Amino acid sequence: MPRPQLAVTMGDPAGIGPEIIAKACARLKPRLDDGALALRIIGSAVALQPYQDISGRIPVQADASPEQPLAIIDVDADRTPIKTGIVSAAAGKLAYLAIEKAVRLAEKGEVAAIVTAPLNKEALNLAGYAYSGHTEMLADLTGARDSVMMLAHGHFRVSHVSTHVALAQVPSRLTPPRLRRVIDLTAEALKSLGIARPRIAVAALNPHAGEGGIFGREDIEVTEPVIGSYANADFDVIGPIPGDTIFVKLLAKQYDAVVAMYHDQGHVPVKLLGFNVDPETGVWKALSGVNVTLGLPIIRTSVDHGTAFDIAGKGIASEDSFIEAIDFALDLAAARSVSARA
Amino acid sequence: MPRPQLAVTMGDPAGIGPEIIAKACARLKPRLDDGALALRIIGSAVALQPYQDISGRIPVQADASPEQPLAIIDVDADRTPIKTGIVSAAAGKLAYLAIEKAVRLAEKGEVAAIVTAPLNKEALNLAGYAYSGHTEMLADLTGARDSVMMLAHGHFRVSHVSTHVALAQVPSRLTPPRLRRVIDLTAEALKSLGIARPRIAVAALNPHAGEGGIFGREDIEVTEPVIGSYANADFDVIGPIPGDTIFVKLLAKQYDAVVAMYHDQGHVPVKLLGFNVDPETGVWKALSGVNVTLGLPIIRTSVDHGTAFDIAGKGIASEDSFIEAIDFALDLAAARSVSARA
Repeated sequence: MPRPQLAVTMGDPAGIGPEIIAKACARLKPRLDDGALALRIIGSAVALQPYQDISGRIPVQADASPEQPLAIIDVDADRTPIKTGIVSAAAGKLAYLAIEKAVRLAEKGEVAAIVTAPLNKEALNLAGYAYSGHTEMLADLTGARDSVMMLAHGHFRVSHVSTHVALAQVPSRLTPPRLRRVIDLTAEALKSLGIARPRIAVAALNPHAGEGGIFGREDIEVTEPVIGSYANADFDVIGPIPGDTIFVKLLAKQYDAVVAMYHDQGHVPVKLLGFNVDPETGVWKALSGVNVTLGLPIIRTSVDHGTAFDIAGKGIASEDSFIEAIDFALDLAAARSVSARA
Repeated sequence: MPRPQLAVTMGDPAGIGPEIIAKACARLKPRLDDGALALRIIGSAVALQPYQDISGRIPVQADASPEQPLAIIDVDADRTPIKTGIVSAAAGKLAYLAIEKAVRLAEKGEVAAIVTAPLNKEALNLAGYAYSGHTEMLADLTGARDSVMMLAHGHFRVSHVSTHVALAQVPSRLTPPRLRRVIDLTAEALKSLGIARPRIAVAALNPHAGEGGIFGREDIEVTEPVIGSYANADFDVIGPIPGDTIFVKLLAKQYDAVVAMYHDQGHVPVKLLGFNVDPETGVWKALSGVNVTLGLPIIRTSVDHGTAFDIAGKGIASEDSFIEAIDFALDLAAARSVSARA
């Protein structure tokens, strides 16, 4: 089996993307040298240059040909200078071009998966790409609909029924087909990670799961019947479990993943466990956790944090989340390649 | 200054209340003996009897007269036998009577504060007391309206704009008067804890604080103006801060408290930090954190967990949360007694 090759997109080159990519390449060097994986960094070669003392000199190549374990595919023929920490249309355009190129390589099978560094939405919009983020861009580029965001921090995995919608819209997003889609894609991802019989817990929409219908009936009328329909599945689906205890149990490994009903219900616990702020300075320190888009025709994982313009170029950004995202992508890619051969 | 005397209500005597009270009394013995505080346990003397090897023999007295450092005020003249771990009307009635007695003692100033062990709502309802919990019962007994639930786990303090309502009702509960009430009571409580200039962060209702209005306008239209109105206050109010980062910063002591918009937004992070489940057995291990009702005419703190019928009588319940609740009540009582004398 050839070594798996991943596309790594730089995201906004004015953010912490170049730095965390360089640090990740340095940490992954033994595995790259051993032939355990190959990386194609897609983005601005100019933006990566200041980090050569960390990553070593990375050769530029025009395509994804797999001879080198590590190479840059430069999407900026003009070699635009990048002002670190500054929002610009030029940087937004390069971020878009990197994703577009990576998607095309993944669709042709030249890379097994895409691992993305963070975008700046404002820069993207200045450049004329009116997306609210990666998920929407990837859906558009691949023609996929109804994808699912999973955040993972080690064994702490959370999929979301809804994400970027107003809280007032959340109850109407909980429909039986959507909940089934989220459960099915979550089960598939867990199996890809080698879990033979995944245990998936579904969070309640309402506090105390609605307390028998007193605080809302969605948990009884929508969630319970959907969960009941999985009685004969080859994975376990339980719930609805009140939001304030389900994550304590997930942390204690009583489940392999939780299905959260909305953005903050799922993001608050994952970020509380994975993120870290220096109490002295208030500066973000460690950022770990992976963001995985389930339900696309290609495999895509991402860091679980933003461009962090406030610390970009200061040498203090952590590559932990990026390494986790690469490892998660490798697991998903290995599972997909096995099932393709089967 | 006489030693502060607290009323400790047993909650449902069939739950873990008697056990955690006995364990707390044992741990507090040096402070009780030193005259640092006095406790009046209000509940079923019969239910406490099995724990005498832990707590020592606690004398029964009819009223709150302060000679003894520790005594039981028995609310059960019939000495009803209690079946541990079983929901019953008899236990529900005793839970209610304990609260009623404690409230009357607090109103007369015979105790400085009430610290409550958990209730079982079903037992309460079987006994004919149609309350959804302590908060509603206390509001009714004291005539208070518009109280605020604060959960605290060490310095991690979270007040709630709404709690036991369906998620669909949450946006309409965010009104300027309610948000001001929550901020004001939170600031007052923080000052009671000795924080000279409290820093209060207000969580956004919508993900990413609505992303400039794309995912909901409440953060712009309701929350921002209210926060702006505190520009000249003697405490700092900041926000709206997105829910998925605000608690990371609270953990890093960037704020003294967070105002959460709804139950799960605030409860998920507090319980994730304060609760603990044994990964081997799935049994709840440590339960810490305090539940404080702000805005009542009396001081009331509580444990942050339920009756835990599944582990009641097994000797494994933790008294940590109860000790925290007692200490929090003592701090609030000391501040109130200072301001009453001022």
